[in-house]
Amino acid sequence: MRQFQQSFVVETRGKALYDVTERVRDVLTNADVREGLVTVFIAHTSASLLIQENADDEVQRDLERFFARLVPDGDPLFRHVEEGPDDMPAHVRAALTQTTLSIPVLAGKLALGVWQGLYVYEHRNRPHSRTLHVHVLGA
Amino acid sequence: MRQFQQSFVVETRGKALYDVTERVRDVLTNADVREGLVTVFIAHTSASLLIQENADDEVQRDLERFFARLVPDGDPLFRHVEEGPDDMPAHVRAALTQTTLSIPVLAGKLALGVWQGLYVYEHRNRPHSRTLHVHVLGA
Amino acid sequence: MRQFQQSFVVETRGKALYDVTERVRDVLTNADVREGLVTVFIAHTSASLLIQENADDEVQRDLERFFARLVPDGDPLFRHVEEGPDDMPAHVRAALTQTTLSIPVLAGKLALGVWQGLYVYEHRNRPHSRTLHVHVLGA
Repeated sequence: MRQFQQSFVVETRGKALYDVTERVRDVLTNADVREGLVTVFIAHTSASLLIQENADDEVQRDLERFFARLVPDGDPLFRHVEEGPDDMPAHVRAALTQTTLSIPVLAGKLALGVWQGLYVYEHRNRPHSRTLHVHVLGA
Repeated sequence: MRQFQQSFVVETRGKALYDVTERVRDVLTNADVREGLVTVFIAHTSASLLIQENADDEVQRDLERFFARLVPDGDPLFRHVEEGPDDMPAHVRAALTQTTLSIPVLAGKLALGVWQGLYVYEHRNRPHSRTLHVHVLGA
Repeated sequence: MRQFQQSFVVETRGKALYDVTERVRDVLTNADVREGLVTVFIAHTSASLLIQENADDEVQRDLERFFARLVPDGDPLFRHVEEGPDDMPAHVRAALTQTTLSIPVLAGKLALGVWQGLYVYEHRNRPHSRTLHVHVLGA
């Protein structure tokens, strides 16, 4: 058994889900593991990770509509406002989703379901560079 | 150190939590590991995983009451409606809970707290077959 | 490659985030691993784990304000009330955050972003002793 690590950066352009499934698959290819476990980590607190449906883009837009209603920009509840009206909502949205995800590797492939894609969920309005670390364990 | 993987299917019958603690313990028994880490993954985006209290069933029903109020079926906010009024709420509920969970193994047992059980949280109304993959690492 | 496990207890004094980053770093030092993966698990269902911003304490208080509004103590929706008005909200808040987190180790350090801290999120009003298990894998 062995491990392999690789990091990459995702450039985001506002609140939305960004598909990183292929980039994580590329890391798995580099790791050359047939059976194991892939763990993805995002090194930020105003963007997060999510496994979601990859078939209908409307699902991702509905998800964004839900979070925009649940944690609206400029919510008067918040006092941490120096970094803009979307900053504290971004931290809350990140807390409600994932900073880390683990996906088994079976027969050389990520064991994702047919409809599952792996996404970076950007919660800020302006463009950001988001760093992801991928750890692969296996044989 | 070695790894072991096994998958199983959970048959669900509507929105509720389904206890899979014993089934994951069975995989650990098959893996024959004394110290290590168990990672559980659910290969779906309208059902999820959750560690919750296993003592009072009312906790699980209250949890369902909360999610039913937070993300009601048929919410007019959603546009992805072709698969039924419970489909998009199911994706949101899955996003707010877990797709993957890791539990340490100590002295041959899952290191769950006394009150912790491991559940599949079904978010659709109709019966579904849900596939879980379990990865065990250890010695 | 090898693994190392260590547990510790966090004493909490009411609803708030408690920084455990240094305590997890201490476990990593004991494990003496340069490249690998640290997994943290909390053995409770009314407290949880969270990676959040460590720069401005107001972020943590805003997060608490948000959860207090989303899942208020004494919410008449809940029927599991024997253990107090903050008990069922605690289970819901734990379900909405994390029971387990994995963080890669790069060059002997937790690969946390500059602004990321690792927190126990206590959801009960009274003091509690919370047990965390830390699993370290690596070389």
